Amino acid sequence: MEINGVYIEDTFAEAFPIWVSRILITAATKRWAKIAATEATGFGTSVIMCPAEAGIEKYVPPSKTPDGRPGFIIQICHPKKKGLEEQMLERIGQCVLTCPTTAVFDAMEEEDEKVKVGFKLKFFGDGFEKKDELNGRKIYRIPIMGGEFITESSFGIKKGVAGGNFFIMADTNATALMAAEAAVNAIQSVDKVITPFPGGIVASGSKVGASNPKYKFMVATTNHKMCPTLKDVVEDSEVPEDVNGVYEIVINGLTEDAVKMAMREGILAATRVKGVKKITAGNYGGKLGPYQIKLRELFE
Amino acid sequence: MEINGVYIEDTFAEAFPIWVSRILITAATKRWAKIAATEATGFGTSVIMCPAEAGIEKYVPPSKTPDGRPGFIIQICHPKKKGLEEQMLERIGQCVLTCPTTAVFDAMEEEDEKVKVGFKLKFFGDGFEKKDELNGRKIYRIPIMGGEFITESSFGIKKGVAGGNFFIMADTNATALMAAEAAVNAIQSVDKVITPFPGGIVASGSKVGASNPKYKFMVATTNHKMCPTLKDVVEDSEVPEDVNGVYEIVINGLTEDAVKMAMREGILAATRVKGVKKITAGNYGGKLGPYQIKLRELFE
Amino acid sequence: MEINGVYIEDTFAEAFPIWVSRILITAATKRWAKIAATEATGFGTSVIMCPAEAGIEKYVPPSKTPDGRPGFIIQICHPKKKGLEEQMLERIGQCVLTCPTTAVFDAMEEEDEKVKVGFKLKFFGDGFEKKDELNGRKIYRIPIMGGEFITESSFGIKKGVAGGNFFIMADTNATALMAAEAAVNAIQSVDKVITPFPGGIVASGSKVGASNPKYKFMVATTNHKMCPTLKDVVEDSEVPEDVNGVYEIVINGLTEDAVKMAMREGILAATRVKGVKKITAGNYGGKLGPYQIKLRELFE
Amino acid sequence: MEINGVYIEDTFAEAFPIWVSRILITAATKRWAKIAATEATGFGTSVIMCPAEAGIEKYVPPSKTPDGRPGFIIQICHPKKKGLEEQMLERIGQCVLTCPTTAVFDAMEEEDEKVKVGFKLKFFGDGFEKKDELNGRKIYRIPIMGGEFITESSFGIKKGVAGGNFFIMADTNATALMAAEAAVNAIQSVDKVITPFPGGIVASGSKVGASNPKYKFMVATTNHKMCPTLKDVVEDSEVPEDVNGVYEIVINGLTEDAVKMAMREGILAATRVKGVKKITAGNYGGKLGPYQIKLRELFE
Repeated sequence: MEINGVYIEDTFAEAFPIWVSRILITAATKRWAKIAATEATGFGTSVIMCPAEAGIEKYVPPSKTPDGRPGFIIQICHPKKKGLEEQMLERIGQCVLTCPTTAVFDAMEEEDEKVKVGFKLKFFGDGFEKKDELNGRKIYRIPIMGGEFITESSFGIKKGVAGGNFFIMADTNATALMAAEAAVNAIQSVDKVITPFPGGIVASGSKVGASNPKYKFMVATTNHKMCPTLKDVVEDSEVPEDVNGVYEIVINGLTEDAVKMAMREGILAATRVKGVKKITAGNYGGKLGPYQIKLRELFE
Repeated sequence: MEINGVYIEDTFAEAFPIWVSRILITAATKRWAKIAATEATGFGTSVIMCPAEAGIEKYVPPSKTPDGRPGFIIQICHPKKKGLEEQMLERIGQCVLTCPTTAVFDAMEEEDEKVKVGFKLKFFGDGFEKKDELNGRKIYRIPIMGGEFITESSFGIKKGVAGGNFFIMADTNATALMAAEAAVNAIQSVDKVITPFPGGIVASGSKVGASNPKYKFMVATTNHKMCPTLKDVVEDSEVPEDVNGVYEIVINGLTEDAVKMAMREGILAATRVKGVKKITAGNYGGKLGPYQIKLRELFE
Repeated sequence: MEINGVYIEDTFAEAFPIWVSRILITAATKRWAKIAATEATGFGTSVIMCPAEAGIEKYVPPSKTPDGRPGFIIQICHPKKKGLEEQMLERIGQCVLTCPTTAVFDAMEEEDEKVKVGFKLKFFGDGFEKKDELNGRKIYRIPIMGGEFITESSFGIKKGVAGGNFFIMADTNATALMAAEAAVNAIQSVDKVITPFPGGIVASGSKVGASNPKYKFMVATTNHKMCPTLKDVVEDSEVPEDVNGVYEIVINGLTEDAVKMAMREGILAATRVKGVKKITAGNYGGKLGPYQIKLRELFE
Repeated sequence: MEINGVYIEDTFAEAFPIWVSRILITAATKRWAKIAATEATGFGTSVIMCPAEAGIEKYVPPSKTPDGRPGFIIQICHPKKKGLEEQMLERIGQCVLTCPTTAVFDAMEEEDEKVKVGFKLKFFGDGFEKKDELNGRKIYRIPIMGGEFITESSFGIKKGVAGGNFFIMADTNATALMAAEAAVNAIQSVDKVITPFPGGIVASGSKVGASNPKYKFMVATTNHKMCPTLKDVVEDSEVPEDVNGVYEIVINGLTEDAVKMAMREGILAATRVKGVKKITAGNYGGKLGPYQIKLRELFE
């Protein structure tokens, strides 16, 4: 199968369940909401070594937020419910509460459960906080130096999907990067998904374990089959002769459908860049993840 | 004492020792270096609940970097040496190695010790990595999908200074915020310091413990004496009658002198904004931190 | 009338007809489309001394553009049809054609006329350009160093509306500015409008002519009735006692309805900022402009 | 000659005299200074069809500006003295005076002449403006809605250099663009120069006149010898077989030495990007411009 002249490999992305929260951060201006959202989702690319996976989902204009101010929706993801709640408390408490003019609201739809993160945050108020209601939401008003911090009392969490992915292979590294950026641009307009890596892109894909017997202590090492500089060095290289740049896009989302839509839009955008040769995806033979998203079915 | 017509309180900022690393992240373009630096320093405002304190120190032009590419220097700080090394490994490994076109180099001067973070990162190469030298630096070249990731082998760490600070009090919240932003702008041009909070600013200053007897389980609660909305509510308020907005700037740095210079430049810039009424600083009566930086001495 | 506790004056904004074009600039990535759009709409705040009024209307994701790439819609406005066509040719020719990876398409709906700007641009191709069709649009492909520049052949223009406006009056300059920024954020989510001034905001409103008899040669001078620093100096000041900062938002758009919607959303957002005291609007007693947009009717 | 493995052609860039002004725009925050500088230098790529050539030279921290606030230095260039003065008046009057919290100061060193742009701007004050002195500079304070606009009375202008240039040729369009961006990043750290095109880069280089006899009315058309898509179409193509992307960097500056330094730093940075094949430059055989900057001499 070809899309815009680019070969789409007959394979699938293997994805996993993960606990997700979806939080709306509003602020006096769009810019301050973005600063808070950026800080709160930093150091959040992969739970291999980050305390959570996190990213900015989308901008919400003032006319669509509970307090009539501009906001950004972020997602925070963690394999464990308890871990997610802790990360929400820490990231909101340290990166949003501390950021000028912000407030936080629950933005989850169809949650599996509620966690009382706002209720716990309110103790920061030292008893000076007030319980209140805002457009039908139960909130707390916590006095701070910058005025008043508003947090919703409870936040929905649900089992979402982590690790939706595809690989972009192109004639040069710069072409692959341009296509990866175009893909991320496209995905940013899809609801309910995030691309948690830096700029939305993974430059250093990994495999489970190590092929080198001396490195057996490693949990994950470079995906050597996908490294352009190794294509004439390793026997099992999967980098085509005319490919010199490979980037991966990793997508987390609230639902499998949202992740599929993001993969579809991202792949379409990537294939628009001249010099892209092939799109493929990462999986573990279907042994590890319950979600198997076939690339070609995205375009049927 | 007045500076530009603004009252400078006769008090001091109380600061603490902290272990610091200073890392140069380069990339193909300034923009990708910034993206990596932002992700790597996210979720890093305060070690109260963040795994590290971190921030971007400054931009370094291509002509001044080991690989002739644009870069940003970041600082990562942790109370413990071991904790710092772990954070360096995790933040570089997950947020820089994964970011398109990046490389990392040691940017510490006069370090106390060296940690072998690059040596540990190299195992990601699964044996395909190469040891090399670049402008006298011992580096590793690790093959990745995006080409080759270069990391210096060892990184210097030293005992730096955390918690340099001052408070800006102004007629309105928006004035205080504008002045805080001007202060951060000024501090960004001082070498060897970072302002780890969102946008460099703290909106929700805290005190140790709680005043409310029911909240005794809290390690830190809102600095109620500094909250404008509580100035007519609590008896021990320190917010002047004509002040309605308060922001704090927190500064970490490699040396006490650098932190002092940053405080000086930041205060000067803040006092340029019309409506700023008073500058003060936070301390614990001198009981906790070995550094006591007197505000008025900064201007002698 | 009060909105969110802010007094809305019983007055109207007086607006004028202007010729408008609406152009979609796409590029390989969102970022390059933004760079082109920014350059092409620069030096375009007011036709008093700028060659056109221009601004970025909105972002369009890849899935919604003719070439499947990310884009920004800009508007260029000029009092005269001929002047508009010249400005389109110059701004596209010098600021978009020259910008890496871009293309331009007509984004006007219900135009009054068509101008052959693409047809004229194609001569830059020196005969090497090719006529083609893309999704039903007649285009030219012009060979350039960066590959191929695509321009649609014709662009719609129509009589739009210039000079929709409102004034934000607040306790301090910083509060007024924060509210003005919030207003611009809100307006950016309204279709078919632009705010052509720097950051969308006017800091130096003007009146026709001069009050000073020695300055009669001036076409426009400072709106002295609205200057906070003159409120105790001039007899006809309209700045309330408790107001120390005033900013104006100027809105151009394709239709009167779009401009009204933008004024409504902008005012609502501004009134959410604490310290805003009053919203008013600018007019010439209804003598000059055919459009009279009453502030209070926006909220009925 | 090769630099970092990239062939440097034995040719020269041909540059021209142009009248230049160098203006410092300060504001309450770095961000507002940038917004004003961006608007004031927009629609300013080439005097072929823009009313001026203009760009942002560099950021100046608060400690180095006359009013202790952050600022950006811009350059405005025009072939004629009179034209330059008009453009200064229009761009400052419409794009800086109108921008929240700004002020303007002369930043020229060793000027040839002074123009009274501030003196002319002051009439906007309608007689309410005040003459004053600031750090030895003669200024005017003009009352506006946003407070007070400060402009220095006179601004230096001098004969500078326009059209310093080099071309980057690479294996793919994306590689050439990445290298061009790296070059611009490097040039931004060189004093006294600007790169007036969008993002600092020219995608559509032109030649004087047309080769097509039917297009003789054109002043300039595409530089067909440099178009990758025409390399197998035109007989006089100068695009090497292995090159598929070409971008030009154009540099204006206060002195020939500054332009040379910028070319040198830009070329060095470009050659660091893997896949760049050749650096060349544009000239008219030395017939038109008095400045001939030989590429190879830059590296002696």
